[in-house]
Amino acid sequence: MNYNFSHRISSLQPSAIREILKNTADPHVIPFAAGNPSPEAFPVKEIENILGILMGDNPIACLQYSVSEGYPALRDACASFAASREPGLVHEEDATLVVSGAQQGIELAAKCLINEGDTILCEDPSFVGALNALRSFNPNLVGIPMEKDGIDVAKLEEAMKSNPNVRMLYLIPNFQNPTGITMSAEKRQAVYELAKRYGVIILEDNPYGDLRFDGKHVPAIKTLDTEGLVVYVGTFSKIISPGLRVGYVIANKALMSKLVVAKQCSDVHTAILNQMVCERFLASCNMNAHLSNLQRIYRAKSSLLLKAMEEAVGDKLTWNQPEGGLFVWYTLPDGVDMPQFCTAAAQAGVAVVPGSAFLTRLGDPCQSFRVNFSTPTNKQLTDGAEILGRVLRDFIR
Amino acid sequence: MNYNFSHRISSLQPSAIREILKNTADPHVIPFAAGNPSPEAFPVKEIENILGILMGDNPIACLQYSVSEGYPALRDACASFAASREPGLVHEEDATLVVSGAQQGIELAAKCLINEGDTILCEDPSFVGALNALRSFNPNLVGIPMEKDGIDVAKLEEAMKSNPNVRMLYLIPNFQNPTGITMSAEKRQAVYELAKRYGVIILEDNPYGDLRFDGKHVPAIKTLDTEGLVVYVGTFSKIISPGLRVGYVIANKALMSKLVVAKQCSDVHTAILNQMVCERFLASCNMNAHLSNLQRIYRAKSSLLLKAMEEAVGDKLTWNQPEGGLFVWYTLPDGVDMPQFCTAAAQAGVAVVPGSAFLTRLGDPCQSFRVNFSTPTNKQLTDGAEILGRVLRDFIR
Repeated sequence: MNYNFSHRISSLQPSAIREILKNTADPHVIPFAAGNPSPEAFPVKEIENILGILMGDNPIACLQYSVSEGYPALRDACASFAASREPGLVHEEDATLVVSGAQQGIELAAKCLINEGDTILCEDPSFVGALNALRSFNPNLVGIPMEKDGIDVAKLEEAMKSNPNVRMLYLIPNFQNPTGITMSAEKRQAVYELAKRYGVIILEDNPYGDLRFDGKHVPAIKTLDTEGLVVYVGTFSKIISPGLRVGYVIANKALMSKLVVAKQCSDVHTAILNQMVCERFLASCNMNAHLSNLQRIYRAKSSLLLKAMEEAVGDKLTWNQPEGGLFVWYTLPDGVDMPQFCTAAAQAGVAVVPGSAFLTRLGDPCQSFRVNFSTPTNKQLTDGAEILGRVLRDFIR
Repeated sequence: MNYNFSHRISSLQPSAIREILKNTADPHVIPFAAGNPSPEAFPVKEIENILGILMGDNPIACLQYSVSEGYPALRDACASFAASREPGLVHEEDATLVVSGAQQGIELAAKCLINEGDTILCEDPSFVGALNALRSFNPNLVGIPMEKDGIDVAKLEEAMKSNPNVRMLYLIPNFQNPTGITMSAEKRQAVYELAKRYGVIILEDNPYGDLRFDGKHVPAIKTLDTEGLVVYVGTFSKIISPGLRVGYVIANKALMSKLVVAKQCSDVHTAILNQMVCERFLASCNMNAHLSNLQRIYRAKSSLLLKAMEEAVGDKLTWNQPEGGLFVWYTLPDGVDMPQFCTAAAQAGVAVVPGSAFLTRLGDPCQSFRVNFSTPTNKQLTDGAEILGRVLRDFIR
């Protein structure tokens, strides 16, 4: 049978990264392509204890159906946690929705706000998982180039002026995936003002905000929001566990009422046991100490990678020093064929993600590749850098 | 701010049932409106043990990111389980996708196959959660009346002929929600032949198939499928736990490749710990004995309700004796105002679902209401029936 797929899905391809990861499941390949939290970052003992307590205390509540909005105690805990990390983020007219990972928050926002052909703006490059969720509603997806301190604001305004039905701006202001760039406070203000002027919803995705290991905190765009323009998406994937699939959305109640309906259609509710684990973790764990520990782990891993890469590739690559998150974005010199370099690296035993995977328009030129420092062991970080240096020397001798 | 919602979501209302349930969270209200498995049906000890073993053996694997297709061992286990319950259901050219509950399987199928305005056919009445997931892609949703042995086949063919772009037929062939009706083997064959003739995908939702407590098994429509026309959705919600949110889709590989892309956009993957729990449960539990126990529980509860209602309402209501599932569909005599009856019942302390909530077209006349027998305790079943009898006598004296 020849299947007639919907317009929205027929041209959509699986995430290049997840495909690369499937092909590099070989444990001998050094996983610079992944984005997994470091195994040392998982609070294993705490989760094990919490599971035991929850199942001992009230097992039926852990296993029964629950409400689409999310476990009430976790909704409160998410809002309190977000407000403690980002003073001023939660407004009185806001509500919180528990979602099955930040990915679902992004998908639901697009489902509720985007008609086919409407324009969505985003940083270019950006997180391919989010771009695919947005693409799956068949929008006019327009990428705005990045500068060292975040999105190019002049080009953003141009795009808001010149595109039809600009409905949404998708941003990762902290330690952006894939570039590692953090948007400056000035740009956040300017971007917010533009969104207000042009009536555009900002979808603020902040998966890495708590993983700052250098520099100074920059407040979330949501803290500037007086109009209910910002839909804020948080997640426990990077600070508790990604496999539990628990995230949250904080947004104006009027907008939230439709997100809840879409959530109900999507999966009824997020797994309740997993919600309870996150709630108990937030309530019983010293979160400041826990986050400091994660920051220490990632500071060390990022330093190790940066130092090893600098030694191995010298001045042949350019990169930004990230202040947090999980990634470094390396750019090859002109004349080196980026896809060929990535293929050669994979053959030499190091999987990196070709930067083109993150572009809004897949054919655009790209000289960069993404390296993740959270998944590899310390030995893999130094070995991988050495191998990439060797591969690069073959390309530029 | 005035939000511009997408066409697909702007007219969609939350599920009437979930709203009723929220308003009847009062423990003094008898929950005939719910659809929760009975607390006695949960394999609490087994799940508790499995969680301990999994977290002890390989906690990082329980908590780390996983693949969008689903935990490979669970995919295999789902296919084996489905094939053991429904010989001939799994074909060589099929693949299995793990989803976050059957609800997500329905939503993903619609997302991949339905453009705005395409026709989806369904039984009328039908499960409002599924109808809302289908509605959330703005289709032409057309209900086909039910007969005692399932959908009206003549009207189904008429609808296939007369509607534009008929792409999908949504069916719950076993112990349908809300009517409790099981489609006969003859009708399954006839429906499949029609779908083949008109090139319509059948979305076969089978949440209750393993809860048959009376009568003879009727093979799934998917077992008849030689063309890759049937997308089969199964779930562990009714036989292990709904709160874990684990279900599965079995369909032709060519169709599955797009469902996997849509799944990736939706929530990356289903919570891996929850998948592992279901896999271990299927592997370590005597499933025949477990299912027999569930059937015994629901046979007893259904008998108790039917007997108590018969005593309380005598011949004033009509109903079908269900052979499985969780629901009985009661129809009021002409002249009794159904919504008023349901309101009076709620005021008297028994929440039932007005049948109109399950209609394709919300304004259509309806004299029925749905009663669930799995959630109430045995005492609530007899007390609730007595109260409904008393309320009814006020309406027809």
